[in-house]
Amino acid sequence: MIDRLIEAIEAKKNPTVLGLDTRIEYFPEKFASGFDLTTFSGAADGIIAYNKALMDALFGTVPAVKIQLAYYEMYGLEGLRAFAETIGYAKKKGFVVMVDGKRNDIGATATAYAAAYLGETPLAGENARAFDADYLTVNPYLGSDGVLPFVEACKAQDKGIFVLVKTSNPSSGQLQDLVVEGESIYQRVGRLVVEWGKELIGKYGYSDVGAVVGATYPEQGAELRRLLPSVFFLVPGYGAQGGGGKELAGCFDGSGRGAIVNASRSLLCAYKKHGGDFDEAAFAEAKRMREDLAEAVALRRERS
Amino acid sequence: MIDRLIEAIEAKKNPTVLGLDTRIEYFPEKFASGFDLTTFSGAADGIIAYNKALMDALFGTVPAVKIQLAYYEMYGLEGLRAFAETIGYAKKKGFVVMVDGKRNDIGATATAYAAAYLGETPLAGENARAFDADYLTVNPYLGSDGVLPFVEACKAQDKGIFVLVKTSNPSSGQLQDLVVEGESIYQRVGRLVVEWGKELIGKYGYSDVGAVVGATYPEQGAELRRLLPSVFFLVPGYGAQGGGGKELAGCFDGSGRGAIVNASRSLLCAYKKHGGDFDEAAFAEAKRMREDLAEAVALRRERS
Repeated sequence: MIDRLIEAIEAKKNPTVLGLDTRIEYFPEKFASGFDLTTFSGAADGIIAYNKALMDALFGTVPAVKIQLAYYEMYGLEGLRAFAETIGYAKKKGFVVMVDGKRNDIGATATAYAAAYLGETPLAGENARAFDADYLTVNPYLGSDGVLPFVEACKAQDKGIFVLVKTSNPSSGQLQDLVVEGESIYQRVGRLVVEWGKELIGKYGYSDVGAVVGATYPEQGAELRRLLPSVFFLVPGYGAQGGGGKELAGCFDGSGRGAIVNASRSLLCAYKKHGGDFDEAAFAEAKRMREDLAEAVALRRERS
Repeated sequence: MIDRLIEAIEAKKNPTVLGLDTRIEYFPEKFASGFDLTTFSGAADGIIAYNKALMDALFGTVPAVKIQLAYYEMYGLEGLRAFAETIGYAKKKGFVVMVDGKRNDIGATATAYAAAYLGETPLAGENARAFDADYLTVNPYLGSDGVLPFVEACKAQDKGIFVLVKTSNPSSGQLQDLVVEGESIYQRVGRLVVEWGKELIGKYGYSDVGAVVGATYPEQGAELRRLLPSVFFLVPGYGAQGGGGKELAGCFDGSGRGAIVNASRSLLCAYKKHGGDFDEAAFAEAKRMREDLAEAVALRRERS
């Protein structure tokens, strides 16, 4: 899967992932008026239409989408219908589909989560696919036996995961930056990520087992890039959370690979900045972001 | 919410939570034949019927249910229909309803998860409830700003959470047991749990913000019980995972309060041990477990 992701990024010359953290508060008035947003069902219909319009506008420019499960679970079963339909449409449009669920549990239960998002669920007779994304985010607090079932699914199904290493939020350091024997917890998790993914290295030297590394901590990003050369980064926190392009230079390698940067609100709500229709504004913002990231990559190349 | 949980436990004289980790492989042959288990829809119908029969058999004996989301997500949208219907039925039967989702994310997204399971989702006009459980399990890897939105929901909606402190799986120590400045990560998380929950202490001295402490680590359980007198424990790992009643004595306080012990497979599949119909077997096993835990509590009282 990592090779497919890298090739999709290179085909679009754009290491951006569109974060579909869609919620009805983001809809421009004109769009909102087309749906009954007083019900979960109407909200879900609106979210599906919004996501489809954004994907129609961006599939030529942006190689991947990341769907944040929380914003779909929040709208109940109807929200999860929107989630499933968004995955299906994203695959039809050729996006690499990441589900941001930060799932985690003990081994047997992690196997069930892996089945839900990356693999197959056993039924009487044949197995069947529940949500069937390409990537899932995973939380490492339970250690190896909580993560390896996801790695097994990656191996069996040619999928990928991104393990939380250093998250983008202000208090991420509270546990992740604690230092044990000269090494921070996030570095220790980074080393585990290398270990977990060492049998799944693709032709560009990166593994199907990647890491979440927040854009809001550029120094740690650059340090992790050096420490973990086989680990591809999913980088949240660009734009609305504060991280800018140049600060991200250190997340890329000398060939300009190694990371994909998520943008959610800055694309979903680009109309507030660029004006016009929300999908056209998202396209303008995606082009601006692509240029911004191209500068970051160029900067990184100069340094190497 | 913690007072309601404690009172429900005392009314049934049973600190047991029925873990509805239901999957079709657990169905006895006679039961399975009533459903088309080659489809997600038939599997979901079977799971609903199984859960309802278990709840009908146990509502007089067991005060709470814990629904493991992974086993419902695994069956896709149909599985989530079974999840929603199980919550509704459990509430109708008077169970305290815990959702085991181990959710976690940055602040804004944690707010969305809290809305989904503990609170209300904003719609145009009024708010609405998506899944509306009483308790949710939460993973602390992101630190305070990833947990406080759940605490806010507890406060606003009279709900509770259990934060992962020391999990029951074999590799839980890989990160959780690392020692920083003389204190393990799980102890540090435990201290944060006290801090997060300090404004939500009920009349028995326990907070709505509890902790997950695995039955498979009885020494750590006893140590945490001493360190965290205001933190109520959800204890997984009893039975199938290896923890027995007497080993759990240390998780309770001198009054026999302080913990609720989860049993999933040992109740779901009790018919394999006790024979007979699965619901009657679950009832027999629940009574045996209640006696086993009563011994643990008595042992704890003797020691205090």
